[in-house]
Amino acid sequence: MILVLRRGLEDSQVAQVYEHLTNLGLAGQSVRSGQHTLIVLQDDAGQLPTHFFSQVESVERVLRLQSRCPLAINRGSVSIKFPGGAVIGGGTPIAIAGPCSVEGQVQTMHLAKQVQAAGASLLRGGAYKPRTSPYDFQGLGLEALHYLREAKEATGMPVVSEVMSPEQVERAEPFVDMYQIGSRNMYSYELLKEVGRSRIPVLLKRAMSATIDEFLQAAEYIMSEGNLQVVFCERGIRTFETHTRNTLDLSAVAALKSMTNLPVIVDPSHATGRREMIRPMSRAAIACGADGLIVEVHDDPCKAVSDGAQAITPAALRDVIADMHAISNVVKACDNGFALDDRPAMVSLALPRDCRPTGVTERS
Amino acid sequence: MILVLRRGLEDSQVAQVYEHLTNLGLAGQSVRSGQHTLIVLQDDAGQLPTHFFSQVESVERVLRLQSRCPLAINRGSVSIKFPGGAVIGGGTPIAIAGPCSVEGQVQTMHLAKQVQAAGASLLRGGAYKPRTSPYDFQGLGLEALHYLREAKEATGMPVVSEVMSPEQVERAEPFVDMYQIGSRNMYSYELLKEVGRSRIPVLLKRAMSATIDEFLQAAEYIMSEGNLQVVFCERGIRTFETHTRNTLDLSAVAALKSMTNLPVIVDPSHATGRREMIRPMSRAAIACGADGLIVEVHDDPCKAVSDGAQAITPAALRDVIADMHAISNVVKACDNGFALDDRPAMVSLALPRDCRPTGVTERS
Amino acid sequence: MILVLRRGLEDSQVAQVYEHLTNLGLAGQSVRSGQHTLIVLQDDAGQLPTHFFSQVESVERVLRLQSRCPLAINRGSVSIKFPGGAVIGGGTPIAIAGPCSVEGQVQTMHLAKQVQAAGASLLRGGAYKPRTSPYDFQGLGLEALHYLREAKEATGMPVVSEVMSPEQVERAEPFVDMYQIGSRNMYSYELLKEVGRSRIPVLLKRAMSATIDEFLQAAEYIMSEGNLQVVFCERGIRTFETHTRNTLDLSAVAALKSMTNLPVIVDPSHATGRREMIRPMSRAAIACGADGLIVEVHDDPCKAVSDGAQAITPAALRDVIADMHAISNVVKACDNGFALDDRPAMVSLALPRDCRPTGVTERS
Amino acid sequence: MILVLRRGLEDSQVAQVYEHLTNLGLAGQSVRSGQHTLIVLQDDAGQLPTHFFSQVESVERVLRLQSRCPLAINRGSVSIKFPGGAVIGGGTPIAIAGPCSVEGQVQTMHLAKQVQAAGASLLRGGAYKPRTSPYDFQGLGLEALHYLREAKEATGMPVVSEVMSPEQVERAEPFVDMYQIGSRNMYSYELLKEVGRSRIPVLLKRAMSATIDEFLQAAEYIMSEGNLQVVFCERGIRTFETHTRNTLDLSAVAALKSMTNLPVIVDPSHATGRREMIRPMSRAAIACGADGLIVEVHDDPCKAVSDGAQAITPAALRDVIADMHAISNVVKACDNGFALDDRPAMVSLALPRDCRPTGVTERS
Repeated sequence: MILVLRRGLEDSQVAQVYEHLTNLGLAGQSVRSGQHTLIVLQDDAGQLPTHFFSQVESVERVLRLQSRCPLAINRGSVSIKFPGGAVIGGGTPIAIAGPCSVEGQVQTMHLAKQVQAAGASLLRGGAYKPRTSPYDFQGLGLEALHYLREAKEATGMPVVSEVMSPEQVERAEPFVDMYQIGSRNMYSYELLKEVGRSRIPVLLKRAMSATIDEFLQAAEYIMSEGNLQVVFCERGIRTFETHTRNTLDLSAVAALKSMTNLPVIVDPSHATGRREMIRPMSRAAIACGADGLIVEVHDDPCKAVSDGAQAITPAALRDVIADMHAISNVVKACDNGFALDDRPAMVSLALPRDCRPTGVTERS
Repeated sequence: MILVLRRGLEDSQVAQVYEHLTNLGLAGQSVRSGQHTLIVLQDDAGQLPTHFFSQVESVERVLRLQSRCPLAINRGSVSIKFPGGAVIGGGTPIAIAGPCSVEGQVQTMHLAKQVQAAGASLLRGGAYKPRTSPYDFQGLGLEALHYLREAKEATGMPVVSEVMSPEQVERAEPFVDMYQIGSRNMYSYELLKEVGRSRIPVLLKRAMSATIDEFLQAAEYIMSEGNLQVVFCERGIRTFETHTRNTLDLSAVAALKSMTNLPVIVDPSHATGRREMIRPMSRAAIACGADGLIVEVHDDPCKAVSDGAQAITPAALRDVIADMHAISNVVKACDNGFALDDRPAMVSLALPRDCRPTGVTERS
Repeated sequence: MILVLRRGLEDSQVAQVYEHLTNLGLAGQSVRSGQHTLIVLQDDAGQLPTHFFSQVESVERVLRLQSRCPLAINRGSVSIKFPGGAVIGGGTPIAIAGPCSVEGQVQTMHLAKQVQAAGASLLRGGAYKPRTSPYDFQGLGLEALHYLREAKEATGMPVVSEVMSPEQVERAEPFVDMYQIGSRNMYSYELLKEVGRSRIPVLLKRAMSATIDEFLQAAEYIMSEGNLQVVFCERGIRTFETHTRNTLDLSAVAALKSMTNLPVIVDPSHATGRREMIRPMSRAAIACGADGLIVEVHDDPCKAVSDGAQAITPAALRDVIADMHAISNVVKACDNGFALDDRPAMVSLALPRDCRPTGVTERS
Repeated sequence: MILVLRRGLEDSQVAQVYEHLTNLGLAGQSVRSGQHTLIVLQDDAGQLPTHFFSQVESVERVLRLQSRCPLAINRGSVSIKFPGGAVIGGGTPIAIAGPCSVEGQVQTMHLAKQVQAAGASLLRGGAYKPRTSPYDFQGLGLEALHYLREAKEATGMPVVSEVMSPEQVERAEPFVDMYQIGSRNMYSYELLKEVGRSRIPVLLKRAMSATIDEFLQAAEYIMSEGNLQVVFCERGIRTFETHTRNTLDLSAVAALKSMTNLPVIVDPSHATGRREMIRPMSRAAIACGADGLIVEVHDDPCKAVSDGAQAITPAALRDVIADMHAISNVVKACDNGFALDDRPAMVSLALPRDCRPTGVTERS
């Protein structure tokens, strides 16, 4: 911590600042820089709030040096492994796909099989739905969780589903393989602590207004309770641009990948709110290093009970996933420096074996 | 609802759109405007999601006509009355004041008396604290609620305190006269429903990223469960400007006052994050029609356990409250058209009787 | 300037940083803080770009101490005086009013007389119009400037008009008493330099995306060329909120008033884009310390060639100006501490003499 | 244009609206939708401002149907061809590279050769520099343009350089092959018109606060003066996130590519302000369809006179360009549907012939 003092202080005023530090059990060293006097604290006092210093008479500004996310930044799991073999953050990008809302038993089973055939590794589906209007469909709740479990039993795909309150965490526990914390709840610290106390991996979506630092701090809330299996999900932030539902901040993906070992995936559905932008934005997400995608899928988007404008069909998902692997392969080749060689390199665009279609016949 | 069709459609394509409408049990009328064909739905279908129409082949855009907040916009309580006589929205502005965090029994009692002496009508104090970092002080919880109740018993001031999860709603119920939903939880719909099921008034703070429409919808969540006693609180939105903690959006106050009957108050502490801006922003808030203020107060801000940079002293609060009444009186005179008369009008700047100091001696 | 070095450096790496400083002719002192080593530069090197340091190997972060707006922050004119007696920043708030676009000779003369009768001190009118679409009305140009001069001759009111290119600065010079730099041109540094070389006062509007620091720097551009007569105009910034045309940032008014001696006025017309919000936002602007208002006025807003939705009638302007003076009077009384006295204070709400109606009969 | 009338109008009030339309020479048709009456204008009246209607008594809202950018949306050049063979928008992505500021004759010549060797097709270099502070380096002006011309003569690379005022357009004309309009001047309509009157291609950068619609309108300003050779450049918008200098909005690339035929390139240097993010963001830009990149390059970034923190070395540029071609090749393969085939596809990652190193020996 560095305290920048106001200019032109009397010695007695500087002494008062030191007295305040002594009262807090801290020591500091004075340094001059141009017209300013600084006091640099000997130990960084990083866990004390800055207003302990900024509100002291004669202090103009306080500069903090130390990060406050020790777990999120240093000790995150490198990869998250699910029963059945799916891995997030293992070097091969994955796709999580499924309906925005679970609408019924038949739909869930049918879509689960279709997204698996298209190459998805995990099944998503909304049981509890955070809707802007109380008059919109609020989700089938427990009933939906049962349908998701049935779909999991049939396909082997792990299930991701959103929880919106501590109570739902407990209720969903027997049904899900990964909790989703939605954007609207990224700041709901009681909820974060609750999933932090569980041992089920957590997909943490960035709030519409969250800085990268706040996003890291939200992960820290979960991890500080003991659950280190957190996956970040960039899903667009709120800006002045209204052409898209949100503004996908892919720089955040690169930033997070450089700051933490935790996996980072991208949700092009919520980021854009427009079906036709899901494919290009998915490509871009993988190109800048995302560990995977979460995509909303529906057989007949104009009949979806929620968010139909941003759902793609299973056939379109197949293209998105094929692109994902192709681009990931090229990015790895680029990272390995193929380009410094003048010979024309070749790269395989094949789907990984476990993402291949396994007998479903329909193709778009 | 109006469907704007793509240009240059065949008759058969238009017929398909009508078929879709018929399947939904809806009727529409075609109209031409320039090169566009529109279909105007006969009944407004206002409760159906727009993607039921926007995702239909041949539909370019969907325009919705009807508001979706029937309760927040039309049926809100005009004023909220508390036991002991305090009223929010009754024509005379009120101040809610107290510490950011309840820090102890003595502090709470002492500050309660001081803010009352300064003219505050309700006591605020954080028992459960939503902090950005899990390593920051998280609030004294139930213990804090007990201190607040003691302060209430001593002063008669109703108590406002934040709840962050459905479980806390139940726990806080015997202790508070008004629930506060903080910015970070404005989108926590399970929590909104829970306070909606209670009969205690709710102070609803705007989320950092919430549009005015989403703010209204959050109130609608509470009201649709039966609790009509909602007070809006504008507390700054997140923008690119970093000089202030948030950007206080006073236009939202004027907008909300014109759209709803519910009271609207302003939190200059969180909006600016800077003690020195609380007085001018409080004046501005009242000048554009706010029904009151919520202000953080601390005896010794540089020792506050949270948010010290934005706390003012009880003596400064007294000035803020005096300004509040003076400006409110002038605004009423302006509304009553004094200015159309050329004679020099005079307006009383006296504090209302119930906000007068009652024997506390310290003044700044 | 403070350089924060990466952790765990070898001595030789620190030596390399010092070598870099020596090459730049700078000296620094090493200080430890927790796990960090800092180098504090002896003289602040405030005019060197931070990347001279931040891009040096081993440097993690650079902290700048010194403001870079010496003129805007310290040496601005306290008040701007116009021939005929109008003063901006003289303690009494003023109103600048007139049509968005000058539409014709008769309109201009008529409106000038009406806004003067309503209490406005300066006449605004657009000759060169920055319109979002090239197909919108682009202003009458030189012709408009002639009409404005005629109106000035008839009323004695100084004229404010926007210039959009260095060439227009020269062309408008004989016609205007104050140049307006619009939001869209706040970053047009060639234009700022050009008006900086003139001796005519400048009304500088904040760009939609400008931070307060950039706003100050834009004033510094003008002042560094010799023209110290700059008035800031807050007119709303661009945020996610779409209910209003922009988001009026009144905190910026308080911030600027505390950082600079230059006058600060507010444009509620562009900030809100909504006629009905001009009165409450004008009140709020004056309450938090603005030195005046600039308001768009039109006799028949739905026939205005530009921005009709945000224009008010001359009769409504009269109310806005009366409010302005009444609130300003109360704010002064508040500043003078009336409130610390328990006796009921009274404040005059009279219009200042020179803002009184002088015989125009119509009133709303 | 559709006029939504207020609810509960008398017939005479509706008649007044029709009278207003008749006065404007327009005809409309009434339609009911739920509780609303709409008037749909027969011809779209798309060039009239909406306030001609929105400010009419009894009109609640006006909905516009028609785009106002006929040239930018429909008639843009598909590709921009430069003397010497470089093409922007021709299907193969290109790189524009060079120093932020032209700093001297030797530097310019040296960097030009290096960026060409790295695979760049056009040379960028700042002669006139829009700097936030008037005390920062403002560019070498005409001298810089001479150095750029020399570099062009030596390498054959077309030159791109920014102009900031109409006068500079004329001055730069003999020296540049492409005008750059910087972000800060995207709303400087006089400048846009001036480059619109030239026949030199224009690189139009998005303003920090520009919506996609305003970005299109700025292109329309240029095109409406006759110059159809416009290239869009997404370079980040201003949001609340401060980790990066701006927020790169890659969705805008996909949006623009779907709305217009004009080429779209991306500037990862200004978007991120961080050297280490240029490579991942360049990959993402190409993956979502950008036609190329503009990148700032410097031999020794910590000595650059401007924007050193975001400059990469020529060696790093070589990697960025190699990635660009590799990813572009894969995207084309993806577009061509390789993925629908189960056989493992292979794609060449070779640099195009004209981007190969041609004898320069240094490699990083």
